[in-house]
Amino acid sequence: MPKKIKFSAIAVVFGSCADRYVLEGYSPKKSFDEMMEAAKKVPSLEGIELVGGWHLTAKNAKEIVKKVEDYGLCVSAIIPELWSSAKWGQGSFTSRDKKIRQDAIDEVKRAMDLAKETGCGIVVPWFGQDGYDYSFQSDYIQAWDFMVEGLFECANHLPDVKIAVEYKIKEPRTHCFIGTIGKAILLIKEVGKDNVGITLDIGHALEGYENMAESVALAKRFGNKLFHLHLNDNYRLWDDDMIPASVHTIEMIELLFWLNKTGYDGWYSLDIFPYREDGKKAAIEGIEWIKGLSDLIDKMGEKEIERIIKQGDATQASALLRKFLLS
Amino acid sequence: MPKKIKFSAIAVVFGSCADRYVLEGYSPKKSFDEMMEAAKKVPSLEGIELVGGWHLTAKNAKEIVKKVEDYGLCVSAIIPELWSSAKWGQGSFTSRDKKIRQDAIDEVKRAMDLAKETGCGIVVPWFGQDGYDYSFQSDYIQAWDFMVEGLFECANHLPDVKIAVEYKIKEPRTHCFIGTIGKAILLIKEVGKDNVGITLDIGHALEGYENMAESVALAKRFGNKLFHLHLNDNYRLWDDDMIPASVHTIEMIELLFWLNKTGYDGWYSLDIFPYREDGKKAAIEGIEWIKGLSDLIDKMGEKEIERIIKQGDATQASALLRKFLLS
Amino acid sequence: MPKKIKFSAIAVVFGSCADRYVLEGYSPKKSFDEMMEAAKKVPSLEGIELVGGWHLTAKNAKEIVKKVEDYGLCVSAIIPELWSSAKWGQGSFTSRDKKIRQDAIDEVKRAMDLAKETGCGIVVPWFGQDGYDYSFQSDYIQAWDFMVEGLFECANHLPDVKIAVEYKIKEPRTHCFIGTIGKAILLIKEVGKDNVGITLDIGHALEGYENMAESVALAKRFGNKLFHLHLNDNYRLWDDDMIPASVHTIEMIELLFWLNKTGYDGWYSLDIFPYREDGKKAAIEGIEWIKGLSDLIDKMGEKEIERIIKQGDATQASALLRKFLLS
Amino acid sequence: MPKKIKFSAIAVVFGSCADRYVLEGYSPKKSFDEMMEAAKKVPSLEGIELVGGWHLTAKNAKEIVKKVEDYGLCVSAIIPELWSSAKWGQGSFTSRDKKIRQDAIDEVKRAMDLAKETGCGIVVPWFGQDGYDYSFQSDYIQAWDFMVEGLFECANHLPDVKIAVEYKIKEPRTHCFIGTIGKAILLIKEVGKDNVGITLDIGHALEGYENMAESVALAKRFGNKLFHLHLNDNYRLWDDDMIPASVHTIEMIELLFWLNKTGYDGWYSLDIFPYREDGKKAAIEGIEWIKGLSDLIDKMGEKEIERIIKQGDATQASALLRKFLLS
Repeated sequence: MPKKIKFSAIAVVFGSCADRYVLEGYSPKKSFDEMMEAAKKVPSLEGIELVGGWHLTAKNAKEIVKKVEDYGLCVSAIIPELWSSAKWGQGSFTSRDKKIRQDAIDEVKRAMDLAKETGCGIVVPWFGQDGYDYSFQSDYIQAWDFMVEGLFECANHLPDVKIAVEYKIKEPRTHCFIGTIGKAILLIKEVGKDNVGITLDIGHALEGYENMAESVALAKRFGNKLFHLHLNDNYRLWDDDMIPASVHTIEMIELLFWLNKTGYDGWYSLDIFPYREDGKKAAIEGIEWIKGLSDLIDKMGEKEIERIIKQGDATQASALLRKFLLS
Repeated sequence: MPKKIKFSAIAVVFGSCADRYVLEGYSPKKSFDEMMEAAKKVPSLEGIELVGGWHLTAKNAKEIVKKVEDYGLCVSAIIPELWSSAKWGQGSFTSRDKKIRQDAIDEVKRAMDLAKETGCGIVVPWFGQDGYDYSFQSDYIQAWDFMVEGLFECANHLPDVKIAVEYKIKEPRTHCFIGTIGKAILLIKEVGKDNVGITLDIGHALEGYENMAESVALAKRFGNKLFHLHLNDNYRLWDDDMIPASVHTIEMIELLFWLNKTGYDGWYSLDIFPYREDGKKAAIEGIEWIKGLSDLIDKMGEKEIERIIKQGDATQASALLRKFLLS
Repeated sequence: MPKKIKFSAIAVVFGSCADRYVLEGYSPKKSFDEMMEAAKKVPSLEGIELVGGWHLTAKNAKEIVKKVEDYGLCVSAIIPELWSSAKWGQGSFTSRDKKIRQDAIDEVKRAMDLAKETGCGIVVPWFGQDGYDYSFQSDYIQAWDFMVEGLFECANHLPDVKIAVEYKIKEPRTHCFIGTIGKAILLIKEVGKDNVGITLDIGHALEGYENMAESVALAKRFGNKLFHLHLNDNYRLWDDDMIPASVHTIEMIELLFWLNKTGYDGWYSLDIFPYREDGKKAAIEGIEWIKGLSDLIDKMGEKEIERIIKQGDATQASALLRKFLLS
Repeated sequence: MPKKIKFSAIAVVFGSCADRYVLEGYSPKKSFDEMMEAAKKVPSLEGIELVGGWHLTAKNAKEIVKKVEDYGLCVSAIIPELWSSAKWGQGSFTSRDKKIRQDAIDEVKRAMDLAKETGCGIVVPWFGQDGYDYSFQSDYIQAWDFMVEGLFECANHLPDVKIAVEYKIKEPRTHCFIGTIGKAILLIKEVGKDNVGITLDIGHALEGYENMAESVALAKRFGNKLFHLHLNDNYRLWDDDMIPASVHTIEMIELLFWLNKTGYDGWYSLDIFPYREDGKKAAIEGIEWIKGLSDLIDKMGEKEIERIIKQGDATQASALLRKFLLS
């Protein structure tokens, strides 16, 4: 029987996307209500992932939760704001400035409080500003020490709130410290807390030349640590944040299979930047692709797929995929 | 009504594939007859692309043609041997050594003679050794002069034999002179001969961050110059020479559509390196994928696809592809 | 005798750099005067490249020229604004909307007027929004037709003002039409006007897996068409817009050599995004690197370098570079 | 006082290099004596890294050691043959075939015996064939289990012989299991043996978008686990195996600094494929570059470099490098 997938989307999917050239955004700014209005119209969408400090604060948390519920949705996760203000430009958890490090830790704790308050129980910290751009600009060992210390402190803050660290190989820094699945696992293993795990972002994995299915398998093997999932797609060299499955059909199918196989039961959360598309339509496409490909896996049959994997014969795998995709 | 596709394969698809580590090859060496025996069993395969000097020579051309026909196939194209002997290590048409340059030109002419003799009427020169590895190693301007001169001389040798230049951005040199669709068009425009055009190799386009459909469109726009097509797939950073459509489903569909739209009527020729796979099975998979995706395009309908392209709306394109791939 | 290099910088080098995460910018906004004040303190900097419509308009052109001169600088080039407003999101010269296409053409013409008015005589159009993101989203042939028509019309507007088309393989679109040196040359050859040429941006060449020296050579070979140069550096996969020579020392030396060899006499214009650096200091570094590497070339000696290139022996090239860099 | 660097080279640097096109090799085959004769003439070269089974066996080990010594060299490391015969085509330690897995383990043990016998005390297993090419071809979790088990067994074989696992992201498989520094550390931490550590290959790190200095720092931080080093260079997308420092000057300097800083005291071993160059000359170039850049670091001064790193200011780092490289 097919698994029921819980779909979510980061709120900004329904906002106005900007890049470093069109800073005003490619479409008119949207209010929170306008974004929720659009989200509400996306079939199968259940959750909304919010940025702490942007979309909700300690003060308005109850009100926002109520509002989101009024739109027939729930808050699925809280993203700490560690990457969108100049303050974090030289790093958050790994800043040389002790004050900024503590502010960053406090920001995550606040997000954890919000996660508890809203009932979602999970925060998704992404350390995009923690890295370096040039040679001779970073003490890599100290940066890792800071990262571990910060996460440890956060993990202890609220042991029943999950911290799902999102890794990414580059951007906005040319090199981010927590860049690959291997490094992400190393980090959370050293922190060694039950409530600390990993967010896999498809596009981040792809731009690190990872096969997403393999990354899911490793997160499973090293402690069942896949806590959260961000859906999108790209052309493998950059985080293009496109509609999921718009480029990589086959690897997406393998990813979905391994998510099932490893018992992943978290959100499938859209993290796309539809710069020039209608956010609602892009979200619908993404969800429909994932649902369609999941149905395909059901049709192919878990047993048959397992048999194929056991063989390790690429032509058999090809034939199976082909028959079901093209029949 | 669906277009009838003419499938071909380079003979070595059915041989033993080697790489720089396993020089002996990943499977036992095969005789020409063994390769033809395997090719014969691939449904829809009509042509065999041969390497001049390897598989056939002036002396045995008639015999080889006969043999290929006995296996129910025909010779589809001749590949001049400009890349597999140490002799060409510092370049063929662009060698600093006049003697080697002339040898290379003569090699192409011999291939053209064979193309005439065998009736295929087309040669596929690939200038993989013509490039450079290090900085300060090449006089780029002189190299282009040599390339143009050589091609011009060949073009005049037999005006009724097509020369379909295959471009590639790297490997075996870290940089090849004729590396992109833009450079390939520049080259053949300067040569300015009716019988000189382009071979698009899917993997070569991908590793140059090209969208194959766009490259086909440009070859059309600049003089209807797509003469030949090599089918394979890869992970976009290297010429992995995998089974076509095993990685890139969507871009492959767009490629097939544009081949039709631009009236391409040449061969669809498999150029894969099934190092660890059975060559015959890999060839079958490749052909079945292409046929299946072509059928899909027919179902989607040329008119509807054209309407979508006119809109330029990614979500509409996504919906169309999704409906037909996942229904 | 060493060549005198004319250094310039895009004005925004001295402003506040933003990216898609930190839209407010990594440092406080700067006024035009503040930017000029910083630029003035950069030794050897002579020119300032301005964005038409942003930094100057028909109305204030005289005033701006005067102001720039008061800071001891001159206007080196005008960049038409074809990439920073939502209006161009679906393309400028290649927009499906005739009105937008004409607006874009008019924007370039206005920039040309400003180029004449300010005396710099050159505009640098970059068609970053002209491309596509997804499959089945673009009619590639029509796009090229539009591009050629638009450029042709502009070229005729003021034949004594140079149009130096800047190519780039991706960003902000996942695929830009005028993406490589090959395509850029194809474009300007078809337009066929004396005043239409090319801007080489180092980072754009690198992210297209080009060797900059080779691209300069090709621009020379196909009509002496290198009109302008943008200096920066990156890690080869993305347009990181870093300080020139901060990553690629050797290829930068080869580039500088070929600029001399081909008689390039245009500006050496800094196009960097010092997100987290002081713009003035970053500009100083960039210029000092280029000057230092140029001096190195002088020491190595043109004749000796030419001798090395003629040999094509990588170890000789290595030895020469090593001796002069490490002595 | 400058550190004394111990230089080594893989024997095949002095042999004939082949690739998948020129299988015969780009230069005539060389005998072992011819290779040693060439190696002997490389100033500062002290060690030779040999492939177990190729260059030496249990039978001829004493004789080979003697011969190498006669040429004024010593055996620096033994590379187990796990990647050059068709037998390993579907994996060595991770083969589905138990017999092959055991053979591979035995091969490493034999190499360890040779390492003991020759006195070098270190083996460098590279699991290039252990990975996958296509989707749905691999059980990633089982593969890691096999890898850990195999290494554990080998580690126990001879606890006083070091096992320095060499990671690589791709080639010959399109995806290798032990692909990044993060994964390599995860692996050796799980094996948990004092004699199991890591080989950093510069080119492998580069093609995984790693900064080598950072990778060295991480190997240090996670247990002082850098056991061996392979020197080469490339254009960041593929393992071009070029002369070290021929492309990346700045990152190479940072690497050398961090090797010192972390107290690395193993070999600096050339692993290049001089397809079209004279092996001896290429080795000389590589060693001279490393020595020259090391001297540069001494001149820059450890204290000053540490001060720069503490600042984290890219323009200061740039100025320091520039002054010493270009003075």
